[in-house]
This record gives sequence, structure tokens and C-alpha cells, in this order.
Amino acid sequence: MGKSTLIMRLKRHFEAVGVPSLFTREPGGTAVSERLRDIILSVENKIDPLTELFLYEAARREHVAQVIIPALNEGKVVVCDRFIDSTTAYQGYGRGLDLGLIEALNSAASMGAEIDLTIFLDLPPALGFVRKGGADIKDRMDSEDTAFHERVYNGFKEIAKSKRVVTVDAGQGMEEVFKEVLRLINEKYRHKGLI
Amino acid sequence: MGKSTLIMRLKRHFEAVGVPSLFTREPGGTAVSERLRDIILSVENKIDPLTELFLYEAARREHVAQVIIPALNEGKVVVCDRFIDSTTAYQGYGRGLDLGLIEALNSAASMGAEIDLTIFLDLPPALGFVRKGGADIKDRMDSEDTAFHERVYNGFKEIAKSKRVVTVDAGQGMEEVFKEVLRLINEKYRHKGLI
Repeated sequence: MGKSTLIMRLKRHFEAVGVPSLFTREPGGTAVSERLRDIILSVENKIDPLTELFLYEAARREHVAQVIIPALNEGKVVVCDRFIDSTTAYQGYGRGLDLGLIEALNSAASMGAEIDLTIFLDLPPALGFVRKGGADIKDRMDSEDTAFHERVYNGFKEIAKSKRVVTVDAGQGMEEVFKEVLRLINEKYRHKGLI
Repeated sequence: MGKSTLIMRLKRHFEAVGVPSLFTREPGGTAVSERLRDIILSVENKIDPLTELFLYEAARREHVAQVIIPALNEGKVVVCDRFIDSTTAYQGYGRGLDLGLIEALNSAASMGAEIDLTIFLDLPPALGFVRKGGADIKDRMDSEDTAFHERVYNGFKEIAKSKRVVTVDAGQGMEEVFKEVLRLINEKYRHKGLI
């Protein structure tokens, strides 16, 4: 099951069971962040890797300050499609930028918003490429070469060793992935009385 | 004499004496940087101070990589209206962001481009305000309150204690400021055979 399908199913499930939730994505979510998303992902913009890092962090900061923190303060469960780990994987492992610098910027941009659970949908890049429909290039990140996507994937595997991250085999069927993710979320939140 | 008038006179002088030079400004100078400039300086965009810092550094990185370094490599004298010290003064002293973080980002964004000479045109904010035509608010930075501009000014005074920076009294007449700045530049570059 792809990331978008999974997120859509989770959203419908939360609505059905009446859990107050916010589903959002990075980069984006505010007027300024959407303008930055457009600059970052436009295939025609050739930008330097460090510029790319700064823009992702700027978009993240706006998104966290204006969207995520207010939702958390209202007691909502926030599900975010991509967050700090994507920066570590893409700009750190993929582009080769300094991991210490990325960690410092990730931390500053996320304003102490605590992450309860990170789910890594594990799908080797070759398979992901086939799923996305082969050569169908959607944005500047998709248009990078195989070696780049291999480095990013290995980066995610490294990050997934952290206790905060749970790896889910995304090569399974749609129902299996959805049920496993839902079980992980329920386990995490049940004691908080949220779900 | 105002900054813009001084820069225009220097540009005309360099052209007249045949010094290969590039006059540029921050934020801006590349397609992506100009789009960022527009986001940063739009009065309608309420952005978080850290977002502002990331955007300035992103714009700087593009500008340095695509405009300044190529010009230096061609042997040109590069005169830049605002650079890293403005970030330290505005986002550090003005907004109160961590000076260590700013220094790290300034250094990463300027890619080791060495600054030969920094000229601080010293004009207390109250005088600068009058010069700009009183309440004529041009952008989001101009629209900040007096206390902010006082903090920024005091920041510049702090930064000006560095050996790299020379302070010029901008309260003098136009001719005096121009001649003093030209003398400083000539002193700096004569032995390099550039001017």
C-alpha cells in the first residue's frame, strides 16, 4: 500500500470513530510553506543542496508554528506525511550534507513538538519506482537518479534503528499494512485515552 | 549619504576607472533568491523569526553559489549591499535568535567566500528614519518598531568591533562619505593590483 492511500484510510477511520485529528503534510500547510513547496519541488529550479535544506526547514517551522502546535494544543492527534526524518534521509544521506547541522536545524524548526510515533513504510526504491508508475516524474525529488534514491533508502533504514521509529513492511497487501499501522497507533494512544 | 546613493556612485567610479566589478544586493540576485526576497519582505506575510532566518540563508546560499563566487573567479571586485552581518544584526540582535546558530548558518551559506572589507555606514536609527522620509514603510523590516531598530543598530555597533569591519560616519556630507569609502577600498585593493 502506498503512503497516500494509507493516510487516506487512516483519516477516514479516525473520522468514523470520532478521534479529533489533523492530517497534514510536508512541505506545505501554510500560505508561506506552500510557496516554498512550489520553489523546492519545481523541476525547473536547480537549487543548491544547502539551499534546499534551508527551504525545507523554513517551510517546516511555519507549518509547526501555525498548524501542528495549535492542533496539538486543541488535543488533536496530528498525522504528518513526512517530517524531520525525511530531511535527514534526503538532504543528509541523499545529498551528503552534514548530519549534525541537519539535526540542529530539525530540532530548531520543530520547536520542541514531541513525536510520539514514527512509522517507516519500508519499500525498497526499485519497488517504489514501479509502484509510482515507472518513469512518471512528478517533482524534482522524483527526478533524481537511482543511486540517490538508494542512499535515501539506506538513510531511512539507519534512522529506523531509533526507538522512536517502527518499521512496517510496505510490500504486504493493503489490508495488512493498514491493520498493522492502526494497531501501532492504538497501542501508542490507548493509555492516553485519545483513541 | 544613504547606502543606495553611495553604492551607485561607487559603481559609476569603478566603471569610469575600468575596474571589473559586480554590484549586487541581498536578499536577491538569482531567480530563486528573488522569489524568496518577495516572501521575506512582503508586509502581508507574518513569518516566524526562525523561518525568516532560514529564508535569508537560503537566498544567500543561492546568491553566493550562482552570482558571487563565479564573479570572484573571474577576478571581479564584488560589492554586496548587505551580507552575513545584516543577518547577525537583524535576526540575532533584533529578533533575539541564538547568535551561535546564526554564525553556523552564515558560515555554511557563504561557502567560504572570504570578505576582504566590510563597511558599516553608521547612522543612528532616528536619523535613518528621517532620511528614509519618515513614515514611508517600504517593506516588512521597515515596518518594525523603534525598539527593534535600536537593537539592530546596537548589534551593528557590536559587530563593527571586529577587525574586518570599518565604521564610516554616515552623518557626514555625501562627498566626505564617498571619498572615505573609496580611500578604504583603494587601500585594501591597491596591493592586490586590482584598483
